Amino acid sequence: MAYTCVEMIETKRDGRKLTPESIEWLLTAYTRDEVPDYQMSALAMAIVFNGLDPEELAAWTEAMLNSGDVMDFSGLPAPKIDKHSTGGVGDKVSIPLAPLAAVCGVAVPMMSGRGLGHTGGTLDKLESIPGFTTRLDPVRFREILFDHGVVLAGQSETIAPADRKLYALRDATGTVPSIPLIASSIMSKKLAEGLDGLVLDVKTGSGAFMKDIERSRELARTMVGIGTAHGVETVALVTSMEQPLGREVGNASEIMESVAVLRGEGPPDLVELTLALGEVMLELGGIDAGADRLRSAIEDGSGLEKLVEVAEAHGGDPSVLRDPDLLPRAPNEDVMSAAQSGYVTRCDALVVGSVATRLGAGRERKEDEIDPGVGITLEAKIGDEVTKGSVLARVRYRDESVWESHKDHLATAWEIGPAPVAPPTLVVERIP
Amino acid sequence: MAYTCVEMIETKRDGRKLTPESIEWLLTAYTRDEVPDYQMSALAMAIVFNGLDPEELAAWTEAMLNSGDVMDFSGLPAPKIDKHSTGGVGDKVSIPLAPLAAVCGVAVPMMSGRGLGHTGGTLDKLESIPGFTTRLDPVRFREILFDHGVVLAGQSETIAPADRKLYALRDATGTVPSIPLIASSIMSKKLAEGLDGLVLDVKTGSGAFMKDIERSRELARTMVGIGTAHGVETVALVTSMEQPLGREVGNASEIMESVAVLRGEGPPDLVELTLALGEVMLELGGIDAGADRLRSAIEDGSGLEKLVEVAEAHGGDPSVLRDPDLLPRAPNEDVMSAAQSGYVTRCDALVVGSVATRLGAGRERKEDEIDPGVGITLEAKIGDEVTKGSVLARVRYRDESVWESHKDHLATAWEIGPAPVAPPTLVVERIP
Repeated sequence: MAYTCVEMIETKRDGRKLTPESIEWLLTAYTRDEVPDYQMSALAMAIVFNGLDPEELAAWTEAMLNSGDVMDFSGLPAPKIDKHSTGGVGDKVSIPLAPLAAVCGVAVPMMSGRGLGHTGGTLDKLESIPGFTTRLDPVRFREILFDHGVVLAGQSETIAPADRKLYALRDATGTVPSIPLIASSIMSKKLAEGLDGLVLDVKTGSGAFMKDIERSRELARTMVGIGTAHGVETVALVTSMEQPLGREVGNASEIMESVAVLRGEGPPDLVELTLALGEVMLELGGIDAGADRLRSAIEDGSGLEKLVEVAEAHGGDPSVLRDPDLLPRAPNEDVMSAAQSGYVTRCDALVVGSVATRLGAGRERKEDEIDPGVGITLEAKIGDEVTKGSVLARVRYRDESVWESHKDHLATAWEIGPAPVAPPTLVVERIP
Repeated sequence: MAYTCVEMIETKRDGRKLTPESIEWLLTAYTRDEVPDYQMSALAMAIVFNGLDPEELAAWTEAMLNSGDVMDFSGLPAPKIDKHSTGGVGDKVSIPLAPLAAVCGVAVPMMSGRGLGHTGGTLDKLESIPGFTTRLDPVRFREILFDHGVVLAGQSETIAPADRKLYALRDATGTVPSIPLIASSIMSKKLAEGLDGLVLDVKTGSGAFMKDIERSRELARTMVGIGTAHGVETVALVTSMEQPLGREVGNASEIMESVAVLRGEGPPDLVELTLALGEVMLELGGIDAGADRLRSAIEDGSGLEKLVEVAEAHGGDPSVLRDPDLLPRAPNEDVMSAAQSGYVTRCDALVVGSVATRLGAGRERKEDEIDPGVGITLEAKIGDEVTKGSVLARVRYRDESVWESHKDHLATAWEIGPAPVAPPTLVVERIP
């Protein structure tokens, strides 16, 4: 073997450059359990401090990508375009977006993750549709994509196993917050989807993993650089995550709100972001006038029909999409009221997301079960005028004592001031 | 448990301060195998980058010290003073120094390490005396110290087990070069000796672990700080390790040279350093006129008699100390000659040490065997005038092909220039 892990750690520790060959060797050996975790975690920490340059990063991502299966949908004539979000509170965009984009002519081979921490996962939301399965073998994944132009599945075990192993280690060793490691983790999985184009929704703000705009921008640029270097046209939108997206934070309730978007009844911010991301997806697929096409697919109901069709293909009961009142709903409800009159100046995504998670809408640990019927409906968001005693939020919960113990925390999410304020700009920046 | 290892890693990664309580918990849990290596190595790398402040460092050292036995020789009326060197090529100072200091009235409970890399270990040198054992149980260690005022043993397994485990991990994870981790590793073992005073010989230069004076000074100050905080009077001398110390680099040959010092026939630099360190040991023991006392102990032969007495107590054959020709000697000898006339301007400790190690005088890996009879005798050091063809070094070796393959490398150790130069100043600085 031409490389030793200790030398690679020392190289990165001292701020020097790893060769592409050594990176490929390392990640292959690590996936085969031939490099111990204690060496990989020391290297990961050195990367947290000293980073990876574009060449190292390309090699790192390719090695993780090539540690597992890479899909090939070249037999499908439509352009293969996916969207990925870095995760936000109330972010259910994928659910209305994927069918809308498919209706407008791109194929969407979407593989999503589960939620962890204060942000929900698309898979968890979809699974609140009775019968809906997100665990598909590669043959069925391909069939649904070819038959319906869109598939919404969990990440297969055979995709980027190096990333799965490394991510679990990073989670346990304080080495998650490294832009090159985050970027290569996301991109190694997305590039395994055999895409022609990729749109990234990089969140910034209180409810985002990246709280400040500079770091969000750097993550966006880094991922766009990786995608482009790999030959996949990649565009990132940096978008605000100061307050939750839409009015629903939960699982079944987010399916309801997704259906509302497809019925032309969605809340303005959620609709705006869905259309903005969809427009870029269509642009990358070589389809012009994307915004108009997407709006038409809402107006004529074809987007909703596509979601129904796809849900059925996944084994789901489509009746809940036509009548969302049939979705699971927790037995108890309470309201959060405004302590004073004025204008909402803050509706903190992190606080709302954390409380929703504690109520059972998300996972604190990987092994936690999701309760699809609990959730928070926001009745007042930034810029809204409220009067003392008016409802800020409706909370659906199962366990009284759990809700009681988090009530005060949820109340801290809102701030109310005397002067009118504008809601935050949603799409902050497009890269490139 | 009030602490989690991930939180501690994140704290140090982000440049914040660890509490003394969390450090104590961590090192206790790590010693008990309750904290995995992959978390400890990530923390060690974060410490490489962000350091430990004096309070963290004191807690870290105390926790390692308290992970094992701490000796108590308070029943012995003499002041307990030890010397520790950070390791250099040809550094056999402990062997003449410990008996000299004992003769002058301090008790020396010395625990030494084995050599690794290009620097030899005191234990390996002592074991070239036939029968000499450095593995002593605590009862025998104490007996020899009480009976003879000096003991020269290997570190017991029961001393600072946290350090032993952590050092092996650091060695495999590129986390050795951290001044706080080096300082706490050394000091946790030395403070376990139940000392009243400690003299540190911190090497600087090509053959030292710390190549530059600033880092050497920082290591010296850090260790003095730890010792003082623990209540042990500690002084460091920063000393030059650009060229080997003395003229002998090997094991049996370094015993020969140690005996020469005790006979008043030692090379000037080795004698100078032995006296300088000895004088501080006596000063810390409250004994004045130390240099004169040490010189007398050489002149009247009492230092050599003490070494003979101690060697016998350790099971060694004392005849080799009276007649060093009886020591092991490799069968083959070659000479290295000067390629030109002039003055020696460089005699590189790192090169000489590395070649001696390859010949069998040291270990590249822990499990390597030492060959006591191989070695290099330097006939020309910095400042010496040489003529073309004169002998620079005599090399004793066992395997012809090994020597042939390192001959050219050894030749690079010397540089010869046209103008006279002074030998490097040996004792660069005293702290405090």
